[in-house]
Amino acid sequence: MDRTPVWLMRQAGRYLPEYRRVREQAGSFMDLCRNPELSAEVTLQPVERFDLDAAILFSDILTIPDAMGLGLGFEAGEGPRFARPVRDAHAIDALPVPDIRRDLGYVMDAVSACRAALAGRVPLIGFTGSPWTLATYMVEGGSSKNFSLCKGMLYEQPEVAHRLLAKLADTVTAYLQGQIEAGAQALMVFDTWGGVLDPIRYEEFSLAYMERIVSGLRASEGGRATPITLFTKGGGAWLQSIAETGCDGVGIDWTTSLTDAREQIGDRAAIQGNLDPCVLHAPPAVIHAEVGRCLREYGAGPGHIFNLGHGIHPEIPPDHVDAMVRAVRELSPPYHDVPARTASS
Amino acid sequence: MDRTPVWLMRQAGRYLPEYRRVREQAGSFMDLCRNPELSAEVTLQPVERFDLDAAILFSDILTIPDAMGLGLGFEAGEGPRFARPVRDAHAIDALPVPDIRRDLGYVMDAVSACRAALAGRVPLIGFTGSPWTLATYMVEGGSSKNFSLCKGMLYEQPEVAHRLLAKLADTVTAYLQGQIEAGAQALMVFDTWGGVLDPIRYEEFSLAYMERIVSGLRASEGGRATPITLFTKGGGAWLQSIAETGCDGVGIDWTTSLTDAREQIGDRAAIQGNLDPCVLHAPPAVIHAEVGRCLREYGAGPGHIFNLGHGIHPEIPPDHVDAMVRAVRELSPPYHDVPARTASS
Repeated sequence: MDRTPVWLMRQAGRYLPEYRRVREQAGSFMDLCRNPELSAEVTLQPVERFDLDAAILFSDILTIPDAMGLGLGFEAGEGPRFARPVRDAHAIDALPVPDIRRDLGYVMDAVSACRAALAGRVPLIGFTGSPWTLATYMVEGGSSKNFSLCKGMLYEQPEVAHRLLAKLADTVTAYLQGQIEAGAQALMVFDTWGGVLDPIRYEEFSLAYMERIVSGLRASEGGRATPITLFTKGGGAWLQSIAETGCDGVGIDWTTSLTDAREQIGDRAAIQGNLDPCVLHAPPAVIHAEVGRCLREYGAGPGHIFNLGHGIHPEIPPDHVDAMVRAVRELSPPYHDVPARTASS
Repeated sequence: MDRTPVWLMRQAGRYLPEYRRVREQAGSFMDLCRNPELSAEVTLQPVERFDLDAAILFSDILTIPDAMGLGLGFEAGEGPRFARPVRDAHAIDALPVPDIRRDLGYVMDAVSACRAALAGRVPLIGFTGSPWTLATYMVEGGSSKNFSLCKGMLYEQPEVAHRLLAKLADTVTAYLQGQIEAGAQALMVFDTWGGVLDPIRYEEFSLAYMERIVSGLRASEGGRATPITLFTKGGGAWLQSIAETGCDGVGIDWTTSLTDAREQIGDRAAIQGNLDPCVLHAPPAVIHAEVGRCLREYGAGPGHIFNLGHGIHPEIPPDHVDAMVRAVRELSPPYHDVPARTASS
């Protein structure tokens, strides 16, 4: 590609009027996730509106705990809540391992429907929450300020936490294998809450399980290898370790410059990011300048996938997203206009 | 000192039954802050219970915006709310600069009362919120998830944001000068929300104003220099820049190891931190081991002030804090048992 590819985390969502219309028609958020045709429709909406370089499956990160019987619900303005959180060894050992086709078949059906609707236009990215991130919601029962229950478990009962995370890692691996078989052409793991851990616990309780997923997929895929990107929000100090898992891409939030990220990661993995989603509140001229800064900070050569540093906010005007995508198209070609296979110009 | 000194952020607070008794007697949280005798009483409670090495003034970080007329209130379980947030150039330019003695005299009275009650037992630390952190609450009107309004202002109207931050920095400087005159023997600046910025905005909109405060205090103090510690939560990548402001101490949260912090900071400043407050939920044996790890990660020699990486949680059992303080007392002396003024043993 002679320019930097671009897509946005949470690109299908509430900021788009066409999404809000389908959402109203579908009923609840989970009703929409469980309807493959409507899920495919909203997955394609931003690709069509902005001419993006990838589609990402419209789904929820908490489908696996929901399939384990925790009872996922959404309260208005409150985010996700589980009716039956798991907080001790007994509850964790009693958790059923979901059967991917039986219990999560609706996700695979949505992947297939997206793939069919895309008809080869752009690649389809499948995704999951990381084991640690899923565990935070499962133990806390929803979003958290201090994560004191789930982090308390790491300190008080590390072996119980490991049993939960191992069960989740194996389920996530099967879940991603299912998405690949259903048509996903790339994968992303969202470790939204890895950054609340200290460096030692991050390695032991989050990164180790993402590495287990990467290895598991590689082993099951044999020669073929579907690209997988790992994204730990707040993980700017640990990018080298993340890249060393054998993943293909590393997601970067806006608190680390792409220059610094590239120094840490080198050629080990592609780098995805990292415009601050708050920039999209600003007028197009500011967006244009900030896109230019991100591209400049990454510098010349391949390996950069333009994205936000976190999901788009619901109140962003779609025109501002359009300004961002146009700026990437306009400003990135010079960074790719370099001789291939030579060390210097 | 032949051992590592120790105190805790938010050491006077709801986790202590003796605090809850005084708080009930006082009325609201701000009623307690505005009552110098009761404020001094709760300031001394943890020092007496745990034999800590420093007292920190019991007050709120939002006293300055309150004195500027924004109407501070606390909703149950919701955190602070301002009745009159400031969101445009007109509101910012109209903000009155508080007179420290007239409008914030109750804080200076509390400092004097604390100092008198301590009677030289341990040093008294005064404090403030950083200009950027104060600005986030003033623009958002309270706590925030995405900080989209205040960060939006940085991108859309940077010169307006600078006017607000300059006004706050000058007020904070006078506020800290007032605390010094009233008896504070050390100072701390809490930059709770600096870590939500990208590296460029952090330098421009948060760090620059903390540096202005440090320089302002140095200039006004002449030969005398009251030690000042800067703490940006989530600022682990920027410790060298923070130390280069000329501050005397740098606060570290638990996401950066003290080994890494010491490498970045060198001899430029003391290092304060960094036990994860969640560790205090665990049993005393775990607390003992984690204190040992923090001390080991810092290593031998002076310059380490033991603390948490953020404020203590309200539900922590006081016995667990006692276990933490005892562990610091027990485990730290070997790290200070090194020959002074020699490069190697």
